[in-house]
Amino acid sequence: MTNKLIEQIEQLAETTDSKIVLLVVDGLSGIPDMSGKTELETANIPNLDALAKDSICGVTDPISPGITPGSGPAHLSLFGYDPLDYKIGRGLLEALGIDFPLEAGDLAVRGNLATMDKNGRITDRRAGRISTEENVKVCKLLEGIEIDGIKALVKPVKDHRVVIVFRGKGLDDSLSETDPQREGLAPLPIKPLGPLAAETAGIVTRFIEEVKKRLSHSFPANMILLRGFAKSQKLPSFQERYKLNAAAIASYPMYRGLARLAGMEILPVGGSLNDEFDCLKQNLDKYDFFYLHVKWTDSAGEDGNFKKKVAVLEEVDSYIPGLLELNPDVLIVTGDHSTPAVLKGHSWHPVPIILHGKYTGSDDVARFSEKECVRGGIGRIPAMQVMPLAMANALKLKKYGA
Amino acid sequence: MTNKLIEQIEQLAETTDSKIVLLVVDGLSGIPDMSGKTELETANIPNLDALAKDSICGVTDPISPGITPGSGPAHLSLFGYDPLDYKIGRGLLEALGIDFPLEAGDLAVRGNLATMDKNGRITDRRAGRISTEENVKVCKLLEGIEIDGIKALVKPVKDHRVVIVFRGKGLDDSLSETDPQREGLAPLPIKPLGPLAAETAGIVTRFIEEVKKRLSHSFPANMILLRGFAKSQKLPSFQERYKLNAAAIASYPMYRGLARLAGMEILPVGGSLNDEFDCLKQNLDKYDFFYLHVKWTDSAGEDGNFKKKVAVLEEVDSYIPGLLELNPDVLIVTGDHSTPAVLKGHSWHPVPIILHGKYTGSDDVARFSEKECVRGGIGRIPAMQVMPLAMANALKLKKYGA
Repeated sequence: MTNKLIEQIEQLAETTDSKIVLLVVDGLSGIPDMSGKTELETANIPNLDALAKDSICGVTDPISPGITPGSGPAHLSLFGYDPLDYKIGRGLLEALGIDFPLEAGDLAVRGNLATMDKNGRITDRRAGRISTEENVKVCKLLEGIEIDGIKALVKPVKDHRVVIVFRGKGLDDSLSETDPQREGLAPLPIKPLGPLAAETAGIVTRFIEEVKKRLSHSFPANMILLRGFAKSQKLPSFQERYKLNAAAIASYPMYRGLARLAGMEILPVGGSLNDEFDCLKQNLDKYDFFYLHVKWTDSAGEDGNFKKKVAVLEEVDSYIPGLLELNPDVLIVTGDHSTPAVLKGHSWHPVPIILHGKYTGSDDVARFSEKECVRGGIGRIPAMQVMPLAMANALKLKKYGA
Repeated sequence: MTNKLIEQIEQLAETTDSKIVLLVVDGLSGIPDMSGKTELETANIPNLDALAKDSICGVTDPISPGITPGSGPAHLSLFGYDPLDYKIGRGLLEALGIDFPLEAGDLAVRGNLATMDKNGRITDRRAGRISTEENVKVCKLLEGIEIDGIKALVKPVKDHRVVIVFRGKGLDDSLSETDPQREGLAPLPIKPLGPLAAETAGIVTRFIEEVKKRLSHSFPANMILLRGFAKSQKLPSFQERYKLNAAAIASYPMYRGLARLAGMEILPVGGSLNDEFDCLKQNLDKYDFFYLHVKWTDSAGEDGNFKKKVAVLEEVDSYIPGLLELNPDVLIVTGDHSTPAVLKGHSWHPVPIILHGKYTGSDDVARFSEKECVRGGIGRIPAMQVMPLAMANALKLKKYGA
């Protein structure tokens, strides 16, 4: 396979009444800790186990075996976009996550408000993790910066985090980052990393100079560190590609941003698991595809907190019966990637998947775990093939060829 | 993978004395009906089960997960041609199936003889399903039509079905179809669907006018409906690609046509399963590759006739001992795609495969079923990789690289 066909799948896609729910449990899977069991194997998840038994299961590779994906490519892949063709940098995701109205050609970058001493060394990369409120005030000081016709729009995200969108002609995102990643060092200079980036590097450098000047009396947030330059790229939308009227339910901005990029409607939702599942229920009639994102498994995994991750999995499990009551035609439960607590970060391990529906066929999997799912009826497939499978099982794909 | 390598496989292929039999049980696999079992799981197929046990098994994706293939792309894939590169429309297959000597650049289209009332509305899309004999007479009335230097060759297929081959320069197959798909409606006008098709659209429109005129007194077959325009494309032959001297045994025209396109010799054969297997036996010495096609599993599946499909599977099973007595070096039993009776049509589900030979290695599969095969030693592979596996196991592929 054959991304070629996924790129043409709109020729086969048709709109029907059936509904698809894609439940993405971020960083779902893992590897065994000292107990010899993974988080999924440790968790008491009777509802997911029963669902696995009553479905067809398998594992997916977010990119390909051995490749550890960031959240961006992992989600793109799950949404059926080849992450090697569509590159969406972190800055862009961050901008989308705060509902920033991006335009084609915009250059977005993540910023940390930081503290710098009088020798120009960073003493706190997060400016004492200032409150979002203070952050808003700092961003006000940075309004209206423009360098050589390029506008720099600085927007607060959360705590010490901001996003900067550069807008104008000829911007390029092949730029080095300024965050030295350690306290006690000076910010790194912006360097062009590609043949077309020299001009942009100069503009961003002058932007940083202007920020320093404007924030010189704004302790502790008197500097900005930049990473994740990314230029805006247009994805074919879910409507265009799958003829789906899709909605996203995600508490975390970055995932909302990603879903918006794929043309999904972003449903307003509170910050709890309960809010998310309730939002699905309330909006069930209005869309034919739902992407529901659960963040907390990944956060626990990143923290190396095996127990917490197990607890979140158990909490997710408790919402499965309610989800099934909504009777979606196709329900997929999977992750975007693995986040083993043992590794305290994303990993390359394949991700279990449950595909539930009337026409899936069956297998012998009776437990939702890494080990069991690998022997399931889906086998091991690239995550990019999940959407075609979802569409097929919802009877939303016409036959290819005569 | 890596169609790239299949496209270059002639560099590795070598002719040897070993023999390969590819038994394609059309629409082989399915999904469980109310009984909880698939057709394969329901059928009493001791010989196929024993063969599966004594072989290595797996499942294939005709195109890729989630994609339901037509018979054309499904067969191309099984023959090792990328169905996304080689597109063979239905009209072309139909022409090949009646032994029509196609030339490069020919434009073929399927036709139904139909009945039209005096207001120009179709009252019977199949002209009362007239006999093949009557069809032959009608086609005689349509001999010698030529429009602007383009010849239109109208040939009977079966019952009310005909094929028209347009021959001449500059033909294009991006044309809309005329069959309104329902009685009581007028035939649809031919429309060009691509930038190069305007001229061809005009020619086909004038051809239809001429047919109407010539058939005005030929009740009930007084009109023709066209669908499946397809322009002739050359495939690299089995001889070129695999250095195989290949023969096809297929009762149904379309599959013979497909095999001819791949450069196989078409063996004359009667219309029963017995005829087909007997033909294989009679011709065993003359070829080193046999494609044997069993149609009736697919027909039963398309009809939603679970029981009938089970019966055909059992009938196929009864020929396995005789087939093994012929002692082919490599025997493959698989389908071109799934046709679950539950879905009354082709589907996207992966297709079980048995690969039998001296050098296959082994696995734990003991039953020829969807569920068991997915855990077999072959795993889940694209159908395009079946031919390389067949060739390798017949020791007909040299080492790649030094």
